[in-house]
Amino acid sequence: MTRVILVGSGRMGTLLSQAIEADKDLELAGTYDVTNVSELDDEAPAADLVIDFSNRDALPHTLAYVRRSRAALLLGTTGFSEGELAEVRALGEATQVIWSGNYSLGVAVLRHATRLAAEALPGWDVEIVETHHAQKADAPSGTAEMLLREVDPAGERTVAYGRQGMVGARPKGEVGMHSLRGGTVAGTHEVHLFGTDEELCLTHRASSRQIFVTGAIAAAKRLVAREPGFYTFDELMFAE
Amino acid sequence: MTRVILVGSGRMGTLLSQAIEADKDLELAGTYDVTNVSELDDEAPAADLVIDFSNRDALPHTLAYVRRSRAALLLGTTGFSEGELAEVRALGEATQVIWSGNYSLGVAVLRHATRLAAEALPGWDVEIVETHHAQKADAPSGTAEMLLREVDPAGERTVAYGRQGMVGARPKGEVGMHSLRGGTVAGTHEVHLFGTDEELCLTHRASSRQIFVTGAIAAAKRLVAREPGFYTFDELMFAE
Amino acid sequence: MTRVILVGSGRMGTLLSQAIEADKDLELAGTYDVTNVSELDDEAPAADLVIDFSNRDALPHTLAYVRRSRAALLLGTTGFSEGELAEVRALGEATQVIWSGNYSLGVAVLRHATRLAAEALPGWDVEIVETHHAQKADAPSGTAEMLLREVDPAGERTVAYGRQGMVGARPKGEVGMHSLRGGTVAGTHEVHLFGTDEELCLTHRASSRQIFVTGAIAAAKRLVAREPGFYTFDELMFAE
Amino acid sequence: MTRVILVGSGRMGTLLSQAIEADKDLELAGTYDVTNVSELDDEAPAADLVIDFSNRDALPHTLAYVRRSRAALLLGTTGFSEGELAEVRALGEATQVIWSGNYSLGVAVLRHATRLAAEALPGWDVEIVETHHAQKADAPSGTAEMLLREVDPAGERTVAYGRQGMVGARPKGEVGMHSLRGGTVAGTHEVHLFGTDEELCLTHRASSRQIFVTGAIAAAKRLVAREPGFYTFDELMFAE
Repeated sequence: MTRVILVGSGRMGTLLSQAIEADKDLELAGTYDVTNVSELDDEAPAADLVIDFSNRDALPHTLAYVRRSRAALLLGTTGFSEGELAEVRALGEATQVIWSGNYSLGVAVLRHATRLAAEALPGWDVEIVETHHAQKADAPSGTAEMLLREVDPAGERTVAYGRQGMVGARPKGEVGMHSLRGGTVAGTHEVHLFGTDEELCLTHRASSRQIFVTGAIAAAKRLVAREPGFYTFDELMFAE
Repeated sequence: MTRVILVGSGRMGTLLSQAIEADKDLELAGTYDVTNVSELDDEAPAADLVIDFSNRDALPHTLAYVRRSRAALLLGTTGFSEGELAEVRALGEATQVIWSGNYSLGVAVLRHATRLAAEALPGWDVEIVETHHAQKADAPSGTAEMLLREVDPAGERTVAYGRQGMVGARPKGEVGMHSLRGGTVAGTHEVHLFGTDEELCLTHRASSRQIFVTGAIAAAKRLVAREPGFYTFDELMFAE
Repeated sequence: MTRVILVGSGRMGTLLSQAIEADKDLELAGTYDVTNVSELDDEAPAADLVIDFSNRDALPHTLAYVRRSRAALLLGTTGFSEGELAEVRALGEATQVIWSGNYSLGVAVLRHATRLAAEALPGWDVEIVETHHAQKADAPSGTAEMLLREVDPAGERTVAYGRQGMVGARPKGEVGMHSLRGGTVAGTHEVHLFGTDEELCLTHRASSRQIFVTGAIAAAKRLVAREPGFYTFDELMFAE
Repeated sequence: MTRVILVGSGRMGTLLSQAIEADKDLELAGTYDVTNVSELDDEAPAADLVIDFSNRDALPHTLAYVRRSRAALLLGTTGFSEGELAEVRALGEATQVIWSGNYSLGVAVLRHATRLAAEALPGWDVEIVETHHAQKADAPSGTAEMLLREVDPAGERTVAYGRQGMVGARPKGEVGMHSLRGGTVAGTHEVHLFGTDEELCLTHRASSRQIFVTGAIAAAKRLVAREPGFYTFDELMFAE
């Protein structure tokens, strides 16, 4: 039985808490959010794993607890500075650590398949299309940018958005990026690769945030069975 | 047997000529292109129908022949001035006339279905996505603009291209327009309509220019059976 | 303000009740389910509209109330006998009545667009694909069968399911029907029409049952503004 | 400069011959078909590579030439017996040999991505959908069966075709297989993987047989640069 400390709040906090309680291999040792995470400094319960889906303000308390207890750490918070990320990474020398901005298993496979396809089909034209609900405030989505990095790890290619009034052929190597917005769509990402007389399209369609919870729990279970180290989601979920 | 004069050249001229010859109801009375269409002024063969897929330079000769002979006229040329179009339209008082920029039956149904859907679902968010080969020089495609007019006949809505770096929710009523370019794609058009918890997507996929020929021939056969008048492709193909 | 009596229970009953209360034009005059719908016989509140999404056992009480009060009737129950349906239909002589097995606006537009396309493209090959969650017990879905009737109103065509081990070309006029099952998909329906070198695909994607509620409420508002008669969902939502 | 002997005829033979002549790294040393391939036994030109896309009758002559000359061998013919395949495989001890039933680069990536996804998402429901022109005589397609083997290498799962009149939930582990037929579609293959609240769809769309030629030429170039051995298309195209 793996004892889990959860740091998180809001919708994701609730979903994670429910998932931990429903899982026969996991036991909830304590739940914290940004307002009381400092309690971890003094009188924290014993735990094998900390799951932190809160925000960067909680980070010092989470890291201190992990450093002391050598509990494994699964981090889902984003927006860290480079220095903070380095600190997280360094903790991998003492215990098992994973940080990811997206714990969806399907998105991870999409990323992996995108890298595979882009490497195997270097001359093919690539276009990325993402669709989200009308209220989403930014474009393109963070996941679309992750997919762009799979296509272009070196960040060397130009990116075309929408192509209004384009004159002339598509520049070779350009990557197209298109953000559709409408209704209540939870999130769809498509990577199109176009060759001569053939086309490959890799699509992921989410219908709720539950998928991030499911993926985080699956990653957590693999994490606690590993040696100390800093792992990517891909390493935990796909490597031998 | 309908006798046909064909004015056209290039790939479309060849395909039309082959299609007319292969059709048991049609007989090719003569073939002209821009270089010799003036021969129609003097010694033109008798015909029941003129099909003109050339360019605006041929128009005076084509119109003069039709005016004299009262042959029906199917016009597939684009780029006319308003004055030229008015002249074409006026000819509908004397004989059967149709002009369209796209004789694909499937695209016509897509346009019709788009109008139907946009009218029936007035509050839904609309996004148009078109995909063409990497060599296509303009964006968005003419057909995508036709689809936009079906969604927004009054031309009142703002159009968003790609949405790079958008901040804030999608403005209500906005229409998104996205041009994918890659490989050798002959032409795909998608109209997405997004409501609350549901989505409609109307897609047309072309794999060759043969479809424009097939549609023009089908329209021509319906045209010659009608009363004099200026018809749209929709009126001929869908109305009772 | 339209006063509404709701007969229904379960998830759909709750969603309908919430939608009526949230609507500024509607007022909930009373809520019943199968266990107490007989109360409508004696001491029913005054109402302009009855919405019945329960089951056939409630029908006699609902019909008796409507007959007496001349309230409009929106019926979403399925599984009626021919005799029961005839009774519902007959009530259209006295008041406004609508019965439909699917009040999704998007599905209605899909059906309408399917009929439009099938009529406009009579020689094209049609294949229907529906996708639902892994727990759905029947195949094909009722909505897929509605779509089949749009393609083939006379019920004259043969239907091919899956085509395992087919030998020889696809029989002309055959309609293909394919039921995908997996995960938690709420419901996707695709109608593919294939011509020579072109293809039309009409897709509806639902992500929750809320869409049936939204459509029923929209239909109800149009119903109460009409003359007495038995209406289809299409007549209310699309006709002038 | 790689000197190539081509054994092949028909449409594929012509396309291969054109591709070899257009390639600056390849030189056509001789072209044979089934009627004259026996000439290879006597007076064959020197060559570094034999490309055989003919049929099994040519095999003895092709193999004898390769055995003698130690030229590399790219084989695209299908329908071999187990004994013939063993002979081909054995030749890998002397020179570089590849045999594949499908040299499309895009299909290879689809297969690879399918294997990746099926392994990474073991509990997800899988459905395979393939679409081909109305004249295709068999179903499912050979490529769809290749995809099925990627999903289920051990051949342990049951396969459901179409699911007509299914009663009850989808059996866990079942794979759905759906063959759409219509129009002139060159070939589309989709692998759908359904999880809880998310879905992955991998699609390949071909628009001509040119893709098999392009892939065979690319594989040939990699083959001649390798050590002797029997290679799969995947090993040549994707492995380090």
